[in-house]
Amino acid sequence: MASPLPVTERTRHRRLREQGSTDRQDLDDILRAGLICHLGVIVEGDPMVVPTVYGLDGDTVYLHGSVASRSLVAAPRTTVCVTVTHLDGLVLARSVFEHAVNYRSAMIYGVPRLVTDAAEKLAGLRALSEHLAPGQWDYARRPNKKELAKTTLLALSLAESSVKIRTGPPDDGDSPDAALPIWAGVLPLAASWQSPEPDPVLPAGIPLPPHIAALAHQRAGWPRLHPGQP
Amino acid sequence: MASPLPVTERTRHRRLREQGSTDRQDLDDILRAGLICHLGVIVEGDPMVVPTVYGLDGDTVYLHGSVASRSLVAAPRTTVCVTVTHLDGLVLARSVFEHAVNYRSAMIYGVPRLVTDAAEKLAGLRALSEHLAPGQWDYARRPNKKELAKTTLLALSLAESSVKIRTGPPDDGDSPDAALPIWAGVLPLAASWQSPEPDPVLPAGIPLPPHIAALAHQRAGWPRLHPGQP
Repeated sequence: MASPLPVTERTRHRRLREQGSTDRQDLDDILRAGLICHLGVIVEGDPMVVPTVYGLDGDTVYLHGSVASRSLVAAPRTTVCVTVTHLDGLVLARSVFEHAVNYRSAMIYGVPRLVTDAAEKLAGLRALSEHLAPGQWDYARRPNKKELAKTTLLALSLAESSVKIRTGPPDDGDSPDAALPIWAGVLPLAASWQSPEPDPVLPAGIPLPPHIAALAHQRAGWPRLHPGQP
Repeated sequence: MASPLPVTERTRHRRLREQGSTDRQDLDDILRAGLICHLGVIVEGDPMVVPTVYGLDGDTVYLHGSVASRSLVAAPRTTVCVTVTHLDGLVLARSVFEHAVNYRSAMIYGVPRLVTDAAEKLAGLRALSEHLAPGQWDYARRPNKKELAKTTLLALSLAESSVKIRTGPPDDGDSPDAALPIWAGVLPLAASWQSPEPDPVLPAGIPLPPHIAALAHQRAGWPRLHPGQP
């Protein structure tokens, strides 16, 4: 099932190689579990790191925003780096030096393509909407021409991607420090949806739609990748 | 109490101005509530966005890593952008176009300084350790000379920072769409610590230290900024 990710000069794992994954399934799992990414783009010579939502469709990640967005205007002219990170816990070791975090992250490099085709633009925005809140595209009012014209959509290929994962206990359990009377382990962190908060001006009698109720009852955010973990 | 943040060409809020804050207290709150940042740095001409932990000390954010880290080697030679983001929920509007996320984010621009002074290096690493897990610095084994030599510490001034915050219900409650029979509101997201998981090789009889127990019992991660929210 798992196909390897191609390795380039930018995505080759140089250090902590045990944390690098070249498994396409890991990449997909991390991207599917995420809600926001951090888009890195060079704007007027300086790096700019912008949190933004994203969507997925096959081998493409979609990013959107206002046509006036500086980061989105700059992006299709240059290589960007899109990073999605899940923080899974603090790794508390015997020594300060061996402290770490458990995490899963994906980095995607590439020059994004400005989507101008009307049908792809609608499909990309649908992918974005459905990634965040499955079911909303068929429930909410879809974008009209004026709104589409105000929106920039970028498509970025997953072709050049890099995955890093750290799981498990501290690394100093087999070192001389393991004899110290110091507690060591992991303090896991998890995200979960809370109760939906209706808009205060919502008219009476409009029920919470089933797809949002289902989302809210998921222990969502970022499920763990590895079986056997709680 | 709240002093304004200085505004530069890079930190001036251009769009969605209602989301921009120039309140220093907001910046401090966002940074204190965060566990990881995304460091954006230009490496061999391309942007690279790396998730990493950080520490705080007054007007300085500290970043650390291996001396071999490509991002940390590149950083002191060039402007970087450090972004800390808290995702607080999905904003489900009547129209797809008005969908949004509630979030708090801080962006810090600057050229980091490589910390070479031994005392500052130790103090910076302490700030980093205490930011993530208060109490660990006095509990765990501190870094020795060899470990310090393997660690790069960078200091970045908060002088050029930008804050954006979105809270509250969707923006289309006063638009014609508000008459549509579509549920609208917010699906909040929160992070919380889970039960500590002792290292499987931890010898019997080493208790969980009180400072970690206290951290685990906090509803931690990223507390909401605004009173009145759950």
